[in-house]
Amino acid sequence: MNMAQEILDNSAYPMVGGDGPYSYARNSNYQKESLDSAKKMMNELIDQHLHPENHLHSMNPFSNSFRVADFGCSAGPNTFHAVHNIIEAVENKYKSLRMEAEMPEFHVFFNDHVNNDFNTLFRNLPATGRYFATGVPGSFYGRLLPRSTLHFAHCSTALHWLSKIPVEVTDKNSPAWNKGRIHYTGAAREVEDAYSTQFGKDFDLFLRARAQELVPGGLMMIVAVGFPDDVQICESSLGENFNVLGSCFLDMAKMGIITQEMVDSFNLHFYYPSPSELKTLIEVNGLFEIKKIEKLVSSIANKRVLLDVDACILHLRAVLGELIKEHFGEGVIDILLERHREKYIENPILSDERYIKEASYAVFLKRKIRVTSRRNSI
Amino acid sequence: MNMAQEILDNSAYPMVGGDGPYSYARNSNYQKESLDSAKKMMNELIDQHLHPENHLHSMNPFSNSFRVADFGCSAGPNTFHAVHNIIEAVENKYKSLRMEAEMPEFHVFFNDHVNNDFNTLFRNLPATGRYFATGVPGSFYGRLLPRSTLHFAHCSTALHWLSKIPVEVTDKNSPAWNKGRIHYTGAAREVEDAYSTQFGKDFDLFLRARAQELVPGGLMMIVAVGFPDDVQICESSLGENFNVLGSCFLDMAKMGIITQEMVDSFNLHFYYPSPSELKTLIEVNGLFEIKKIEKLVSSIANKRVLLDVDACILHLRAVLGELIKEHFGEGVIDILLERHREKYIENPILSDERYIKEASYAVFLKRKIRVTSRRNSI
Repeated sequence: MNMAQEILDNSAYPMVGGDGPYSYARNSNYQKESLDSAKKMMNELIDQHLHPENHLHSMNPFSNSFRVADFGCSAGPNTFHAVHNIIEAVENKYKSLRMEAEMPEFHVFFNDHVNNDFNTLFRNLPATGRYFATGVPGSFYGRLLPRSTLHFAHCSTALHWLSKIPVEVTDKNSPAWNKGRIHYTGAAREVEDAYSTQFGKDFDLFLRARAQELVPGGLMMIVAVGFPDDVQICESSLGENFNVLGSCFLDMAKMGIITQEMVDSFNLHFYYPSPSELKTLIEVNGLFEIKKIEKLVSSIANKRVLLDVDACILHLRAVLGELIKEHFGEGVIDILLERHREKYIENPILSDERYIKEASYAVFLKRKIRVTSRRNSI
Repeated sequence: MNMAQEILDNSAYPMVGGDGPYSYARNSNYQKESLDSAKKMMNELIDQHLHPENHLHSMNPFSNSFRVADFGCSAGPNTFHAVHNIIEAVENKYKSLRMEAEMPEFHVFFNDHVNNDFNTLFRNLPATGRYFATGVPGSFYGRLLPRSTLHFAHCSTALHWLSKIPVEVTDKNSPAWNKGRIHYTGAAREVEDAYSTQFGKDFDLFLRARAQELVPGGLMMIVAVGFPDDVQICESSLGENFNVLGSCFLDMAKMGIITQEMVDSFNLHFYYPSPSELKTLIEVNGLFEIKKIEKLVSSIANKRVLLDVDACILHLRAVLGELIKEHFGEGVIDILLERHREKYIENPILSDERYIKEASYAVFLKRKIRVTSRRNSI
């Protein structure tokens, strides 16, 4: 079930809300796996790079709060696991320094798009009383919090959602026009380039906004879905899945259920960077020190989940349901997913573990205290 | 329309969400009137008592944010007006000191109960970009933010919602048992005392929580609905309205639509303090200096709105709809309001301006910098 990783958060087309059978809340196991494998790394890195003994929040003698944000949180429950892991790691650090008496109060900012289901998020907040919770509506490609608000920023499996489809891709007069396809997988070089350029711009905006919101020396952990440097998306079951989905749309156009033009103008705004690409973009941005970029290990159990057709269909509905309804209207998703199921079962690549080539990359950053480049002065 | 002021925010039974015809969003004009008449006073008091030149946020050289919270915000739009007025007053103060260059970024925390419709609140946020907005779910009778987070706290027409019905009122063995009534209006002295005691406890919890959340010297404006010192609620059209509503429930019990026991166990958790009562409770609490307590002037237009039967019925539905559904089940509200309408038209007190005796009191407080009493040390 290679589409599972499409589950993401920050978009004008939110995940399916609530906690019903098609909701994101009940169809986001893949993301949880990433979080679990990121946990150990986060503990080590927070231990290594957090220095509460000279932290800025101690400068205000009346306030001792440690402020964490999760960007692209969706409606839970994964965001609660992530926040739990961060707070635990920070507490461990304080304990290891015998600074229990100075333990801060934790203030957590849950961010997602304004159309996210914050009501469900708030109702499902764990009743541990371990932190003060707030919701922050808005796109994480812009500023969401005042300067120097945060000590720790987190963003998991969210950045592959582009802020928008690159304009060239739907422009009939452009060499990047993506006729008859819904993604850059298997498309002309120009299409992939347009996606890649858009990702670069978006990621830069993300880093600039977070650099302002973090205190100098503040930490950030990103978990990004991507492909290893030597793998092309079209060689993977994830890419194949996009192709199959595209072909289902074309079938429906031939059957007259939707128009060919509707398919031509529909594109999924997911982009999967390579670790080198991430590294280069962070360096060009210049506002963060890279402390680590590491591929997260995916468990066998997780891979099995990825190969289950029922789970795949549920995931597709949770992630793409609203997006497809918006573009094609009501009723299309059911026919589409039925067709997708048939093709999925017949396609050996989609259910073969060897073609699962995408991976989650943990990127651990520290906001530079001084930025020398004039372009990127904070 | 004397029930209009019942509109409130912080309760386990939220206002009707969304922005349909029965929503709080479209039935909260009374509250807006209070805000408008409070605006002038707020401007003067912020000008007098805000001292940005020695404000704490300037202690952190990297951060310059001014943090405002509205407690009991509901889903808008009144909370947006209130926040607008506060920010404008703060900006004016900075300008008057020629401190434009140090103008802070504004961070606004919108608080209401976890069942509040935050999705609607967020979708209706003004797109001015004038402040960073966050939602804070939870009861304002407890802590909601880390220590020393806020510079300004606001709470308008929200505190008359008690955190709960005093237990004695539904205890058959207590002299405060409120059989056959739904409010303390016209009830035994013991019933009113139980309500008053509950209000005292709740208000104290509110003040203690806000004192911790505000920076030392931080400011708070409360707009509270109450009655002048020399007026009893039973002499007012508001009280009469509760009596009439109670009698409608009793009629329905006689008709067998609901049971007598259901009526006996149902009580509205609204309490209306007098200005002296507020003053005494704030003094006993000891954490705030009282800068001003002032009755807000209600406009003639506002009074006319209060006397309109259609507006009254819409308001009752917006405020009590969920509460009544929860206790009596579906369908009861329509019959109740139809009956209420009939009695309203026949009752001269309800449509007579002279019986509008409740008022909004603006209470302007400053969080003490040092608290000497041991009981109330922060």
